[in-house]
Amino acid sequence: MEFSSKLLEKAVNEMSQLPGIGKRTALRLVLHLLKQPQEQTQYLSQALTTMREDIKHCTSCNNISDYDLCEICSNTNRNHQIICVVEDIRDVMAIENTGQFKGIYHVLGGKISPIDGVGPSQLHINPLIEKVKQGGVREIIFALSSTMEGDTTNFYIYKQIMDYPVELSTIARGISVGDELEYADEVTLGRSILQRVPFEKSMVKN
Amino acid sequence: MEFSSKLLEKAVNEMSQLPGIGKRTALRLVLHLLKQPQEQTQYLSQALTTMREDIKHCTSCNNISDYDLCEICSNTNRNHQIICVVEDIRDVMAIENTGQFKGIYHVLGGKISPIDGVGPSQLHINPLIEKVKQGGVREIIFALSSTMEGDTTNFYIYKQIMDYPVELSTIARGISVGDELEYADEVTLGRSILQRVPFEKSMVKN
Ligand SMILES: [Zn+2]
Ligand SMILES: [Zn+2]
Repeated sequence: MEFSSKLLEKAVNEMSQLPGIGKRTALRLVLHLLKQPQEQTQYLSQALTTMREDIKHCTSCNNISDYDLCEICSNTNRNHQIICVVEDIRDVMAIENTGQFKGIYHVLGGKISPIDGVGPSQLHINPLIEKVKQGGVREIIFALSSTMEGDTTNFYIYKQIMDYPVELSTIARGISVGDELEYADEVTLGRSILQRVPFEKSMVKN
Repeated sequence: MEFSSKLLEKAVNEMSQLPGIGKRTALRLVLHLLKQPQEQTQYLSQALTTMREDIKHCTSCNNISDYDLCEICSNTNRNHQIICVVEDIRDVMAIENTGQFKGIYHVLGGKISPIDGVGPSQLHINPLIEKVKQGGVREIIFALSSTMEGDTTNFYIYKQIMDYPVELSTIARGISVGDELEYADEVTLGRSILQRVPFEKSMVKN
């Protein structure tokens, strides 16, 4: 792609660093910004920069938050004895959207994946183990996607806490095996929270 | 969509102002930036802001440029007597990519479209007419997309300059009628430049 302007080229190159945005799409987006009032580009740049610099992760559950403790963890009306373990913040948003879950979350930030070089230490697993060891956790619900990596992660956590008096469950798979949580419809996802099954039972593959 | 952070929500909202980027895609892009080093977000924001503030339009052809006169217009090796009229900068890039055209361009910045409220005065048509009136233009090649709006725009320009000694042509339609110029393959587009037809001939619809 030959550009008539270095400024344009640089903007397109940076934009096309984003996942799923090719050079052609990046050019279309950037030319759109050129046609809009200058403020739109300022607002976008400012929003991205401020977010990247100031955003926090909840010190308790690792959810994205504007405060040290996220709104869910600091809500005393929620049951802090039931922890739903998820991969990332989009899963929190998806489950919150069902209105079916009144416990709290623990966001791992990924799944154990030796192929991608992701081991337990790169994930926020230890704080969860510590919470269990300190007591006060009655139930853990695994809500990772049911892939090899998800199962490996569940099993790794299970082995660390199996000797503690914690009930373990996984969300019911009304959701098709292999599907991403965030694309599930609300009713199915809500039901799979309510009909969660004991973890040992979930390991019996059909 | 319920966000756990106002900063995140604002970034997603600004990102989803871009055409073709829905809320879900915007969230995916923004979460990607959160996982990358802080510099990536800085570079992106900086590139967009600088581009939007400092980019120029060529005072002669209206192409996007870092200088008052674009590299094509300031190139004395090109034939300044042949002007190719295009809709936007992506068309310039597409034609330049064929290596078949040695004249210069005139970028209108759109097409006449009464439905979208775009009249001749919102486009860079007058500077083209002026150029013709001042003499020194031997040929004008219309390279707008062959839609109703493209034809209307061609015809509007034609009527303004028909009394001047300028040859008028349109690029040959090896390209399917209605297709966007920028998606044409190089060979077809290159040929359509070489095999351009006199404008009057192009008005005879098959
Ligand atoms: Zn939290
Ligand atoms: Zn120029």
